[in-house]
Amino acid sequence: MTGRLAVVGLGPGDVRWLTPEADAALAAADALFGYGPYLDRAPVRDGQSRHPSDNREETLRARAALETAAAGTNVALVSGGDPGVFAMAAAVCEQIETGPAAWRGLDVEIVPGITAMLAVAARVGAPLGHDFCALSLSDNLKPWPVIERRLDAAAQAGFVIALYNPISRARPWQLTAAFERLRRYLPATTPTVFGRAVGRADENIAVTTLQAADPAGADMATLVIVGSAETRLVPRPGHAPLVYTPRSASA
Amino acid sequence: MTGRLAVVGLGPGDVRWLTPEADAALAAADALFGYGPYLDRAPVRDGQSRHPSDNREETLRARAALETAAAGTNVALVSGGDPGVFAMAAAVCEQIETGPAAWRGLDVEIVPGITAMLAVAARVGAPLGHDFCALSLSDNLKPWPVIERRLDAAAQAGFVIALYNPISRARPWQLTAAFERLRRYLPATTPTVFGRAVGRADENIAVTTLQAADPAGADMATLVIVGSAETRLVPRPGHAPLVYTPRSASA
Repeated sequence: MTGRLAVVGLGPGDVRWLTPEADAALAAADALFGYGPYLDRAPVRDGQSRHPSDNREETLRARAALETAAAGTNVALVSGGDPGVFAMAAAVCEQIETGPAAWRGLDVEIVPGITAMLAVAARVGAPLGHDFCALSLSDNLKPWPVIERRLDAAAQAGFVIALYNPISRARPWQLTAAFERLRRYLPATTPTVFGRAVGRADENIAVTTLQAADPAGADMATLVIVGSAETRLVPRPGHAPLVYTPRSASA
Repeated sequence: MTGRLAVVGLGPGDVRWLTPEADAALAAADALFGYGPYLDRAPVRDGQSRHPSDNREETLRARAALETAAAGTNVALVSGGDPGVFAMAAAVCEQIETGPAAWRGLDVEIVPGITAMLAVAARVGAPLGHDFCALSLSDNLKPWPVIERRLDAAAQAGFVIALYNPISRARPWQLTAAFERLRRYLPATTPTVFGRAVGRADENIAVTTLQAADPAGADMATLVIVGSAETRLVPRPGHAPLVYTPRSASA
């Protein structure tokens, strides 16, 4: 008897962003694993066991899900947003590579989801409408100089930049440093978007400029988008301004 | 009477990737606009008019959808994948900025979707598991030297690279040139993924190396992912290999 593991992207908070595929994967599971608040979003169904874990325990959570699947259970491991973007899919792959050989024989499926930058972008227009990058500001797993080098490269080459994990209690200064870095290369007026808790009841979307961007406006639940030099703001009477990056770029 | 315009992301081909929000937006529309094959994916409903257009007519399509909405109609403009990623949302924003003032008063909603790179990544593991960028290889709207500069910057800074619009009949050499460029900076063994028609009946996913990557394996419906120097391949007996980029990065 072989179990299987589905790593399921729930999308950002709104249930209207949960795909039918993800919903079906949750329904088919015998055991659900995940960070507590994400797991709370999965409907409770008879006969399913639920295994919430803490935010920082990604490796332990991946191992527990793989062990349970290897024991013959149909497991769903839930992830916010898309599991492949700064989330659980890479943690699972790491454990499959380094864990017991039997784990390589498991049936593993990654179920994609709407990742936060797409949802935040949709709220304000099309800031990711041209070449862009996604960069985690967490220096828990990579040295800060690597992050600086990537910020420099992205801004100088004209990529719009989506910043994941911009700030946390344990990482209070990184977003400030990132904005300072980007101001070297980008106009003061560059549109900058703070998308907090997108799709949840406490959602808050704020559009500002790179010059005025205040790291105090971000927390663990925030996704920040910093435009390129081409990104534009379109004022609209009676509506929030549109932020978009044109499809064309000059040299 | 004011109309409204929803720019709706259908996700890649598979209907199991159509979000409930997108489905509801399609159901609520009086008029549907879009590139023919995408429009064909929207269920036919009584009382809705359908306005298919050709692939290259993005500007005309955006204008037609805005004109119809401004006349008081509830319009859905469909887009493959996510409308904010190399798709219709930016074209709509451009037309709102440059078109009649009344268009700025329209109620416009962008409905996000699963974009191709997330779906292709999910099929093979977690190649986008760490910092990455999305880059269009189309030089219809930007000069080729801009694309070269972005390829150089992304590869040198350690971003995984998702290539949209890698090749077409009118742009036959760009993918070859891009691979040659990336080979200057990345190991020959760098995992490279060709994801063709992901989620459709004729889906074909191929994993190779940057050295062996053959542009002939790509067409207009292909999304290419080129790993970073950290991206790994995990062979699995009886299963396709996993491709993933670890969450940690060295200096």
